Amino acid sequence: MGARLEKTARRAKAACRPLSALETDRKNKALTAMARAVRSDAARILAANAKDLKAFKGADTARGRLALDPVKLSAIAASIENIAGLPDPVGRLISETVRPNGLRIRKVGVPIGAILIIYESRPNVTADCMALCLKSGNSVILKGGSEAVHSNRALYAALARAAAAEGVPAGAFGFIDAVGAGARRAVPLLLKMDQWIDLVIPRGGEGLIREVARLSRIPVIKHFKGVCHVYVDKDADLRKAAAIVLNAKVQNPAVCNAAEALLVHRDIADRFLPRIEKELTAKGVIIRRDKKAWGQEFLDLILAVRVVKDVNEAIDHIETYGSRHSDAIVTENAQTAKTFKDAVDSSCVFVNCSTRFNDGGEFGMGAEMGISTDKLHVRGPMGLEELTSYKYVVEGDGQIRQ
Amino acid sequence: MGARLEKTARRAKAACRPLSALETDRKNKALTAMARAVRSDAARILAANAKDLKAFKGADTARGRLALDPVKLSAIAASIENIAGLPDPVGRLISETVRPNGLRIRKVGVPIGAILIIYESRPNVTADCMALCLKSGNSVILKGGSEAVHSNRALYAALARAAAAEGVPAGAFGFIDAVGAGARRAVPLLLKMDQWIDLVIPRGGEGLIREVARLSRIPVIKHFKGVCHVYVDKDADLRKAAAIVLNAKVQNPAVCNAAEALLVHRDIADRFLPRIEKELTAKGVIIRRDKKAWGQEFLDLILAVRVVKDVNEAIDHIETYGSRHSDAIVTENAQTAKTFKDAVDSSCVFVNCSTRFNDGGEFGMGAEMGISTDKLHVRGPMGLEELTSYKYVVEGDGQIRQ
Repeated sequence: MGARLEKTARRAKAACRPLSALETDRKNKALTAMARAVRSDAARILAANAKDLKAFKGADTARGRLALDPVKLSAIAASIENIAGLPDPVGRLISETVRPNGLRIRKVGVPIGAILIIYESRPNVTADCMALCLKSGNSVILKGGSEAVHSNRALYAALARAAAAEGVPAGAFGFIDAVGAGARRAVPLLLKMDQWIDLVIPRGGEGLIREVARLSRIPVIKHFKGVCHVYVDKDADLRKAAAIVLNAKVQNPAVCNAAEALLVHRDIADRFLPRIEKELTAKGVIIRRDKKAWGQEFLDLILAVRVVKDVNEAIDHIETYGSRHSDAIVTENAQTAKTFKDAVDSSCVFVNCSTRFNDGGEFGMGAEMGISTDKLHVRGPMGLEELTSYKYVVEGDGQIRQ
Repeated sequence: MGARLEKTARRAKAACRPLSALETDRKNKALTAMARAVRSDAARILAANAKDLKAFKGADTARGRLALDPVKLSAIAASIENIAGLPDPVGRLISETVRPNGLRIRKVGVPIGAILIIYESRPNVTADCMALCLKSGNSVILKGGSEAVHSNRALYAALARAAAAEGVPAGAFGFIDAVGAGARRAVPLLLKMDQWIDLVIPRGGEGLIREVARLSRIPVIKHFKGVCHVYVDKDADLRKAAAIVLNAKVQNPAVCNAAEALLVHRDIADRFLPRIEKELTAKGVIIRRDKKAWGQEFLDLILAVRVVKDVNEAIDHIETYGSRHSDAIVTENAQTAKTFKDAVDSSCVFVNCSTRFNDGGEFGMGAEMGISTDKLHVRGPMGLEELTSYKYVVEGDGQIRQ
């Protein structure tokens, strides 16, 4: 198996140079063809998905992530077409300066190289990653979950075939087609191949991500978990506060930017808490007032609630129990908002809006490759630009250094 | 020893939050005081340096890097003052967008956190790193070479004292004061402290850097070596070409952006090579025409020379034997220059100028923390902005996600 994995990694590396030179037009044509292939192969993909669903033994929420249907397939195709319409991040001018000696220094976007994506359940990740990596000039190696192997295989086959017919270099897309014990053995081997793979992006539960971070010799971009807070200040507009807390908790509780904890200023706790708890309970949310709930990522209709004495105690709580993902304040007081914005060191800090907005689509980036809480390279949503590096191009007319 | 190192790392981490909140004025006042302290402590620092030099048994070039004198000390003080004059990268607005739903999204600079610098010989690195990290709101742990321990200790004492008197938080500057076997044991221990240290920057020879990259659990920004090329095309202005080759090789052969190889188009080899070889030889440069010289980092007055059949062979040579650091083309042909600029994937690609310009000062960044050939986070010179990450600050008026 090691030899087969190594071959896939070598091919991904070899594809980097032709991929980085691929013209925007050709990439967009290939993406359009890939979207078409998802639609024309729909029956085959759904049949493969049915096989996965039949074998699946997990919980209902996980089954929901795995399941495809014609509407979801259509959304997958539309997402690929959307990526075709976004600006090409390769070769984009990031900045330009002319030095006193006449040198013109341009900073331009270049692909990162070969990217390994390790993910669980959701088959749409297969299509999103292939489309985002192609557009950003990177090769990609896909290692999906065993539970979705038939779905991923069918999606991959359709997309790779369509791309190849449009002249995308072989090796642009690698697929680790192992299941069970074989799949579990593959990951540690891949994570040591730092001579061919430039970046690893794990997407899934905290366990998977910690394991990848621990084993990898290749740089990893990640977030372990999303323990997101909403702090309702004494100067909050309580109507806005209620709408934001409700949205952040219940609109999609299974995702990383959903709120897991509500902090309420003590001066308004008596007015605000009964009202919001009633609204939350009506939506099926369980309120937890105990300390053990602090710092937990429930990914479910559960909310930790704490009364704090002021914004500073809220900031300290977020620093101690948060995960530096997405944290919000609701206040009409500009000074309090500033204190919070300056002090909270999360990938996204929100004022008077829902934590659910930490998302590539909501930021106007188009599709995203996940969200990072790291502080190197990318923080927050990872869109096309975040999938590139840069180089400096320095042009002169014979200048030498004094 | 482990306990002492852990204490230093914990203090560096604890200093991150107060440091990130330090106002620009206060940082600049502290930097000005630090520059003053270098001048007022000059006698003590030079006496410490004399001790290091007395014990030093290495080569003359290495001794040159270790040696301080009043002129060098004055340059160190001036460099700190220069950093005081640069814009504060913390809190700077990187980009701003307003979404259709009215959300205002700002991307703002934030410090990375606690940075460990591992370096050899040059005592000026101690001062540069302290000044750059303070200005960028990061805490720093300094692990200098044993051969410079007295010089580093004296510089550190002067700088840390001056900064503390200006209200810089304790823990902003950590100093690993071990020598010999103790120092060698300290590095692997520090490289495992990823709960407190956010980034490692090794500066020194390839051996040191590979060792750090191999042992580190903390992200590392680095370049292993600088194998830089100058390609002289058939359409080159040979006067410019000669000046550039000479400058890239001899102006400072011991540094990473000096040229190690000259590639010459076969159509002009007969005209150009005798002339440039004569000039190089007159400066003491040894010419090596053998294949074994390809890909070597000489850091000395030695130059590999190869005749190539065209720009594509030059590009292939650079891809195979280069280190993705700094590579130049000399040509008056815009199409050939474009081919080279697009295909060569080095941190800096130069057209008609010397590779020696890959430098933070020459780029207008002020002082630099080294040069990266990595493709994640920073590539090329690492100045103040490159020592920061960012966060998104999203402001609304009650928006929730649909």
